[in-house]
Amino acid sequence: MKTEKNIRCKIRFEPSGLKTEVDRGATVLEAARLAGVYVTSICGGDGYCGKCKVVVDEGQVESPPTTLLTPQETREGIVLACQARVFSDLTVTVPKSHLLDTGQILVDSDAHRFSQMPAEDIGEGGFPLDPLVQKHYFELTAPTEADQVADHERLYHAIRQRLDAPLMQTGYRILQSLPGVLQQAGYRVTVTLAQRGGTIEVVDVEPGDTTRCNYGVVVDVGTTTVVAHLADLASAATLDAEATYNSQMHFGDDYIRRIIYAEQHGAFDEMHRRIVHDINDLIQTLAVRQGIELGCITSVTCSGNTAMTHFLLNLDARRIRRSPYVPTAAWIPPIRAAEAGLRISKRGLLYTLPAVGAYVGSDIVAGALATRLYESPGLALLIDIGTNGEVVLGCKDWLVCASSSAGPAFEGSGVKHGMRAAPGAIERLRPGPNLTVRYETIGDEPPRGLCGSGLLDTLAVLLAMGIIDRSGRFTEQAAGRLRDGPDGPEYVLVPPADGRDAIVITQADIANLIRSKAGVYAAISVLLESTATRAEDLQALYVAGGFGNYLDVEKALAVGLLPEIPVERIRFVGNTSIAGAKMSALSREALAAAETIAARMTYFDLMNHPTYMDSFIQANFLPHTDLARFPGVEARLAKAAAWRDSGA
Amino acid sequence: MKTEKNIRCKIRFEPSGLKTEVDRGATVLEAARLAGVYVTSICGGDGYCGKCKVVVDEGQVESPPTTLLTPQETREGIVLACQARVFSDLTVTVPKSHLLDTGQILVDSDAHRFSQMPAEDIGEGGFPLDPLVQKHYFELTAPTEADQVADHERLYHAIRQRLDAPLMQTGYRILQSLPGVLQQAGYRVTVTLAQRGGTIEVVDVEPGDTTRCNYGVVVDVGTTTVVAHLADLASAATLDAEATYNSQMHFGDDYIRRIIYAEQHGAFDEMHRRIVHDINDLIQTLAVRQGIELGCITSVTCSGNTAMTHFLLNLDARRIRRSPYVPTAAWIPPIRAAEAGLRISKRGLLYTLPAVGAYVGSDIVAGALATRLYESPGLALLIDIGTNGEVVLGCKDWLVCASSSAGPAFEGSGVKHGMRAAPGAIERLRPGPNLTVRYETIGDEPPRGLCGSGLLDTLAVLLAMGIIDRSGRFTEQAAGRLRDGPDGPEYVLVPPADGRDAIVITQADIANLIRSKAGVYAAISVLLESTATRAEDLQALYVAGGFGNYLDVEKALAVGLLPEIPVERIRFVGNTSIAGAKMSALSREALAAAETIAARMTYFDLMNHPTYMDSFIQANFLPHTDLARFPGVEARLAKAAAWRDSGA
Repeated sequence: MKTEKNIRCKIRFEPSGLKTEVDRGATVLEAARLAGVYVTSICGGDGYCGKCKVVVDEGQVESPPTTLLTPQETREGIVLACQARVFSDLTVTVPKSHLLDTGQILVDSDAHRFSQMPAEDIGEGGFPLDPLVQKHYFELTAPTEADQVADHERLYHAIRQRLDAPLMQTGYRILQSLPGVLQQAGYRVTVTLAQRGGTIEVVDVEPGDTTRCNYGVVVDVGTTTVVAHLADLASAATLDAEATYNSQMHFGDDYIRRIIYAEQHGAFDEMHRRIVHDINDLIQTLAVRQGIELGCITSVTCSGNTAMTHFLLNLDARRIRRSPYVPTAAWIPPIRAAEAGLRISKRGLLYTLPAVGAYVGSDIVAGALATRLYESPGLALLIDIGTNGEVVLGCKDWLVCASSSAGPAFEGSGVKHGMRAAPGAIERLRPGPNLTVRYETIGDEPPRGLCGSGLLDTLAVLLAMGIIDRSGRFTEQAAGRLRDGPDGPEYVLVPPADGRDAIVITQADIANLIRSKAGVYAAISVLLESTATRAEDLQALYVAGGFGNYLDVEKALAVGLLPEIPVERIRFVGNTSIAGAKMSALSREALAAAETIAARMTYFDLMNHPTYMDSFIQANFLPHTDLARFPGVEARLAKAAAWRDSGA
Repeated sequence: MKTEKNIRCKIRFEPSGLKTEVDRGATVLEAARLAGVYVTSICGGDGYCGKCKVVVDEGQVESPPTTLLTPQETREGIVLACQARVFSDLTVTVPKSHLLDTGQILVDSDAHRFSQMPAEDIGEGGFPLDPLVQKHYFELTAPTEADQVADHERLYHAIRQRLDAPLMQTGYRILQSLPGVLQQAGYRVTVTLAQRGGTIEVVDVEPGDTTRCNYGVVVDVGTTTVVAHLADLASAATLDAEATYNSQMHFGDDYIRRIIYAEQHGAFDEMHRRIVHDINDLIQTLAVRQGIELGCITSVTCSGNTAMTHFLLNLDARRIRRSPYVPTAAWIPPIRAAEAGLRISKRGLLYTLPAVGAYVGSDIVAGALATRLYESPGLALLIDIGTNGEVVLGCKDWLVCASSSAGPAFEGSGVKHGMRAAPGAIERLRPGPNLTVRYETIGDEPPRGLCGSGLLDTLAVLLAMGIIDRSGRFTEQAAGRLRDGPDGPEYVLVPPADGRDAIVITQADIANLIRSKAGVYAAISVLLESTATRAEDLQALYVAGGFGNYLDVEKALAVGLLPEIPVERIRFVGNTSIAGAKMSALSREALAAAETIAARMTYFDLMNHPTYMDSFIQANFLPHTDLARFPGVEARLAKAAAWRDSGA
């Protein structure tokens, strides 16, 4: 059925109350996008993930038959939003499980935790505080008949007396307004200077001393979550942080799906608008909360995977998912932020950290910068687990990297009750009595789901408790604790209470999580083997990514996410993408280091690597097919089994 | 009387037939400007130059009494256009003496003459052919899975293999379109590269090989005349030249008056639009005549006095005429030509040669470049006589300069029958029988007036013939050849014929010309004295400016325009402003030399100089008060007087 242009239908979504109007024949998912209602849709609307279930309360839709819905669900009015076509005015309820449905912005709590990190690395012992965009106050000598130097050269002369700036440029509009500003201000002005490649641009000239009004927004443009920090560029202090979901999630959970969607629907502009809108929302929130005018924000510095930075700048992203897998630009030059649609100071700049290639983005370069991996005397490993799992191995002499398309399981996506690190997310688990578990939630709020660290703990705890075996399957012993869910057997982590459904983990969830950790581990294996490095040679292992506030290193080892090395060498470093971006925003030397990193890093293409698939299959066990690699874990597993046997 | 907004009057101008409508109370001059009819107005509409005489044929005007009109003129309906206010619909005739009245573009013939000059200086023995804007054709290796370098870096890599370009920049729009262009063209593309300060900008990327389509327009933005050359940037050949009057002349003959007019009438934007319109007309004419698309013109390179370049770029020019006499920028950075309103390739650039200050513009820097004065081993002097008279003295070790506000007499302005070097202009004069003169016109056309070289010859010939004395006054001997004109006694150079009026020279004309030459000579004197240089030390003396095709050096010496040095050291070099601008457009090294010149040149402010006024007054004789400075001239004058005495 095609849409019928002449018959319009009104759709109301509950519980948000958001409304829209569409042509008869449009899908409910299209209507939801129009209305701004988030409906989970991992497959991007292709009708095979079954995630976009909604309830039609009133009105009529046309749906093709599907095995993704049980007869009971069909009776209850449940449809797949991407398949159900609007036939009349509708009222549709979007279940709570679509976590974004309220449009509420959830602050990523690790954003707060790491807000101070770059400041520690700026100044004494770290990079010098020398921001990409600086404001300098000058009291120029006014011209006289004895000193007839032109306004423009007068300004340049003053700048060069203070800064090493052999190459400078000035935009036409600034040149035109310069004499007026200088005379109005009695030649006492604040000049905004920005690094642009090898030159310094005179971005703005303002009357008087406005040097205190110079803020930068730093953004980690994640596939799932977008995190923004507000930094005072004059003092290097991080003032505030905020995060939101990437609203491109409407079009697919991972960037490959989003590129496919954009190609099929001519929606690259839409992708661009979405992410720009999300970042503008974050900027607005930060600015309002801190009482800062947008005009005082002179730069946005961002990092992200290459697809995200291409979407943000509306650069052609097609060949990121298609042979020969090349981006438009790995090193995106700074542009006027307004040109990309970002609302900060009219002439403020958008900096994008350099990337390595299509599958190793500037977020990873930022990670190598933030962890100082590129200048480490001993070998170090960085693992960044987000929607993909990227791995960097190296030291001051060399850097190699790989990307496993691990899938966003540890970000809570593709897992029934997975969620981002946000209040109410279960972040720690331990065994309880009678094959139950105990848990802690972020903010001690009533449990709503599991964030990355909670999911990792779940795998480790269920394995230790013998509820799952090393292949991830529910054991016979667990049978009494399982219940039948719509997707098969599921283990109840949190029983239902207060009208809240149970929080469960399904067999499919566990398989997804194991695949994700196996992808990461296999990537590590390939890099170690390719460089003839033994795990024990690693002097440091940094784990970055969206696990929340916390990562239980013992449990990460127990499930075989990380190679077994002494735990004191393993450090959870949180969001290194934003940390590296912030270091760059605050120090030109840091950006130069990021460029060195991007130029030096060698990319290993795992998809075409002869041993990757073997490594991946071997890693599809807990902790691994080859237990000899995890002697410590093996010992503990044996101990736990003995304890169970003795207790039984 | 103020204008009355509600009563509109229609004005028709003859002989052009151009019409307009104005509010009752507007001046006839305002109406003429609106209609696009040129009316000479040296004072810019202040009512004291008396140049804007027009005839009211029909209708009614209101005019204040003035001594600038004879009773006879008033009876004939002649009014001052700037004073007469429209009271009803009018028909106004603009006399032929307003030479621009037809709106016809007169090609400056010296534009053709010097079209080849820079080419001689480019290539072997001169500056290398290395244009500011270059097109390079690249056959890039297309990316493969084994070579995943991003499009942007791929391009940079190829460029850097061919050129020394450590610093490059690419505009956002080019970056966005890059993958599409590369793929469409099978990675065979032509890249337009432009020098921007110390960086190279990727201005454009086009499919295929378009290297042959790369043209530059070079413009001498004169106060009176605007000259444009069309150069093939690939071969350094000058293809064509064209010139027009600067249509800002509506608002005053010199730039000081124009700045005053613009201040009083808020007309800086109008000044900008006028000159941009003039240059666009020239570009259009050249492009159409040579069958070249505007899109193939990748740059405009201009030189001019500082006021003109400020008008062109719409930069604040107010303090050029007002203490402390500083420009907005002496070194104007390249901008996108479209930003200034110039119609060439959409992303083409506008280069402005560097200036020294408010009164020594980039035209003079271009002159020092074109004559190679800045690298001369011996002392050399450059005199550029245009609307002002600028003088540069120096050698490879130092350069000094001064500007005399000589007035545009040698450009034909302020002289009753003065005109620009154009067909019909008298360019040579010599004594004829019975106190008459013989003459030659440009193009051998019927005489229409006198261009610069004709005016200089007139002074010299009338002096030699004893028609004027050394103070410039008509002698008793001349009385028989004089007639009474509206401005007093005038000498008839060409009797009336074929319905054409006589061509005459008036006492006021001669005074104007002597003042102009005295200003130039005094400027030279000050520079020579200030640097303890004797005239005989000069190894070369270059005379540039709007004299036409020709300058009779003997006569220039005879009237005392130039210091007396051996004639073989004196060279007439034509329009060095455009020659230097063209050298810069064709060679980055030449532009760098221009920057060195501008930085090295020391400006002498004549208005505040202790001896300038004395020098000027002494030079207000033919050739000079102090005949000892001109021993050769003195000898010839004595000979001529003896010949006259013997002949009488």
